[in-house]
Formats: sequence, C-alpha cells, structure tokens
Amino acid sequence: MADDEKTIAFVLYPGLTLLDLAGPLQVLSVLAHSGLGYRAVVVGERAGAVDTDTPLGIAPSHTFAEVPHPFAIVVPGGAAPTLRALGDERLLTYLREASATAEWTTSVCTGSLLLGAAGLLDGKRATTHWMYREILRGFGAVPVAERWVEDTPVITAAGVAAGIDMALYLVGRLAGDEVARNIQFTIEYDPEPPLGGLDWDLAPQVASHLGEGLKYGLADNPDMLARLLPYA
Amino acid sequence: MADDEKTIAFVLYPGLTLLDLAGPLQVLSVLAHSGLGYRAVVVGERAGAVDTDTPLGIAPSHTFAEVPHPFAIVVPGGAAPTLRALGDERLLTYLREASATAEWTTSVCTGSLLLGAAGLLDGKRATTHWMYREILRGFGAVPVAERWVEDTPVITAAGVAAGIDMALYLVGRLAGDEVARNIQFTIEYDPEPPLGGLDWDLAPQVASHLGEGLKYGLADNPDMLARLLPYA
Repeated sequence: MADDEKTIAFVLYPGLTLLDLAGPLQVLSVLAHSGLGYRAVVVGERAGAVDTDTPLGIAPSHTFAEVPHPFAIVVPGGAAPTLRALGDERLLTYLREASATAEWTTSVCTGSLLLGAAGLLDGKRATTHWMYREILRGFGAVPVAERWVEDTPVITAAGVAAGIDMALYLVGRLAGDEVARNIQFTIEYDPEPPLGGLDWDLAPQVASHLGEGLKYGLADNPDMLARLLPYA
Repeated sequence: MADDEKTIAFVLYPGLTLLDLAGPLQVLSVLAHSGLGYRAVVVGERAGAVDTDTPLGIAPSHTFAEVPHPFAIVVPGGAAPTLRALGDERLLTYLREASATAEWTTSVCTGSLLLGAAGLLDGKRATTHWMYREILRGFGAVPVAERWVEDTPVITAAGVAAGIDMALYLVGRLAGDEVARNIQFTIEYDPEPPLGGLDWDLAPQVASHLGEGLKYGLADNPDMLARLLPYA
C-alpha cells in the first residue's frame, strides 16, 4: 500500500449478517480499485475464518492490531450474535480507538448498536434495522426512520440491504457523484424488487418478538439487557 | 438436515465477485431459516478459504462431492477470475452434473457464462452483467436485457446486485409472495440509490475494454477466447 492511501476498515466479528458486510464492501472495494487513493481492508480480532448468519465462512485480511488508525470504519450488524458482541470488550475498544482518529465512523443495520455500546452515538441522530430502531434510545441516540443518517462524522444505515445505499452515499461524499455513478454501473445497482418497495402497512408484527430476542441475545449481559429492554 | 429438505447450493470458486454470492445467499438463507423445508449450502471444489474480488476471504460449507444432487444451484460471477474459471473442468463438470438433476439452475452476473461453458444455455434466453451481454451468443444463448430471465429451469440474473432481485423472485416461485415479502422485510430491501436508478445514457463507454478484458482473462484458454471474442 502507498503510505498516503486512506484505509476503509470493515469490522468483522462472529455471526454477523453477511449482506451487511458484503454490500458496502463491494461498493468500497470498487472505489479502492479506482486509483483514487483508497484501500479497503477487513479487520478481525484475529486471523482465520468465522461464521456468518449464512453457510458461508468469512476471513479478515488484517487484525485489529494491524489497522489501528483507519480513515473510516464500517460496522456490520446481525441478530443474536451482534447482541452478544455488545459485551465483547475487545471489539468495543477497537471501535472506540479507531473511531477516535477516523474521519468517518459508519454502520449498517444493528451495527449501530455496537457503535452505541462503544459510546459513539450519545446525542447523535442515527438509524438501524427497523425492528431495533427504538432500542437506539438506550445509547442516548435519537432514532431516525431514514435509509441512512449522517450526523457527521457518523453515518448509520437502516437494515441489511441499506448498506449498499449508504456506501454509495459515502462514495459520493468522498469522491463525488461521477465516481459513485460509475460504481453503481459496475455493480449494476438498478433495483427491481419483484414485489416493489416495502409497504410498511404490510410489515410483520414483531413487537413481542423483539423483547424475546433481546433476552435471548443478551442472556449473558444483564446490564445491557436492563439498559435496552425498556425500549423493546 | 432432514432427508426431505431441498438443498440450494451456492457454487464457490476463487476470485468471484462477493456480492454476486452474498446477495442471493442472504435471501435464501432466510428462506432456509423459515422452516419451509429448504436448506442453503455453499459448495467448493475443496474445503478452505479462497479469495474474492474484495479483501474478504470466503470458505464453503461443503465440497462438490458432498452435494452431488442439490435441488437448485446458484452460480455467482466475477471479472477475470470468472473468465479463467471457464477453463476449470472440475467446476464445469460439477455444474453439468448438478444441473442434470436439479430443479433450478440459476446464475448471477457473469455466472451465466459459466453455465454457458457447461453447455447449459444452448437455445436459452438468458442475461448477464450488461457489459458482457452479447458474449452470451458464443454459448448459443439469446441475450435478453432484463433484470432476470427465466427460461425454465434456468434463471439468469443481470450484474452483481441483480442477484438480490432474482433470489426474491425465486423465493416467490418456491414459496409464494408472502414468504418473499417477509424476507424482503427481514433484509430491509427498500432500495434508495442516492443517485436514483441507472440512466443507461450515462453508462461508461466500455466497448473497447471488453475485448481487452477477454484477452486478459482468457490468456490461457485460446479456444474459449476465439469463441467469445467475435461478440465483444
């Protein structure tokens, strides 16, 4: 790598939701191949493959220790494994220390809960997966129902697939709309959901499931459970 | 696994485009968790992690030999590594043999070139990444400029991100629209590309690059190069 390259670090941990990571990683890897001075890395606590919420195993390119001061971080989310990661002090310490010197701190889906647990969302407007949105209040954040929310230097995206939109927005902020558009052509992102966009009147009723999900995912973290359960 | 589960096998090979795999894998993994009798696996020639076109390494859950007769296969694409894979006889043999007994044979992006090289697109209407569309003629296929194309039992998707749309369509075919809609909510697929959908009048001019790309990716496969170059 050239010393003056700006490193965008995607943060890996066991059990994350694959598409939360893969969508923005694809977008920003194309940016990294564009000769504009960016590189993309995937950082994990240690080398070696970990599980995802799909049958695919995934392996980081670097360890946390190897990338202490990235230009930007992107934190993917997930379900129960992400709730468990809210008690992973090594992960939270990395997020806190990397964010302290990064120009951008970003998340996809419930990755914003990890930012919250690291103390990075206090007083910030933020979003997350629609099911978890109110939970953000437990971290002092102000939940916003938007596809992505910039409260500089933090950008949080809504659930899973929203990471693609957020990453293209970030490219626009970093390198301008023409570069973002060319990347959009490269990944042929011209969405045609077969049933159209989401009609929120048809959303599954999940209110009762959320509390159960928190109790399950935070079974070993009673302090965090007590902090978040009032908002479920 | 239950003996009567229907296995959807995602085919892994070195250097593939991550999002081609991850988009549909996320969608169909949610289907597999829905208790409707499907399971998802990722199959590679051998165990262990391989590279992608991003910094992420990926590892299959099973080998080709362990999943000889899946219910469906999904073949992701890529750039030069996918062109090189057009000469990978072990991969093509797996595609041919698995497809012979599968109910569905599907691809994302230039994954359709692999189906073509395996002899599975002769006379079929099909699509691929927009840059490569005319190349499909080299396999006897009829190129179609649609987001996804079903020519039963083959479904091919356009480039990269089109795999998400195709996978939701496949879920609709397998399990109905209500299941597809619930999965769309789970992955919060309510796209908002920051610059809107693709305006094809603004597409990068790539005609001259395609021939160079084929020559580079097929440097070790002169027969395939001779077959495809006339359509570049």
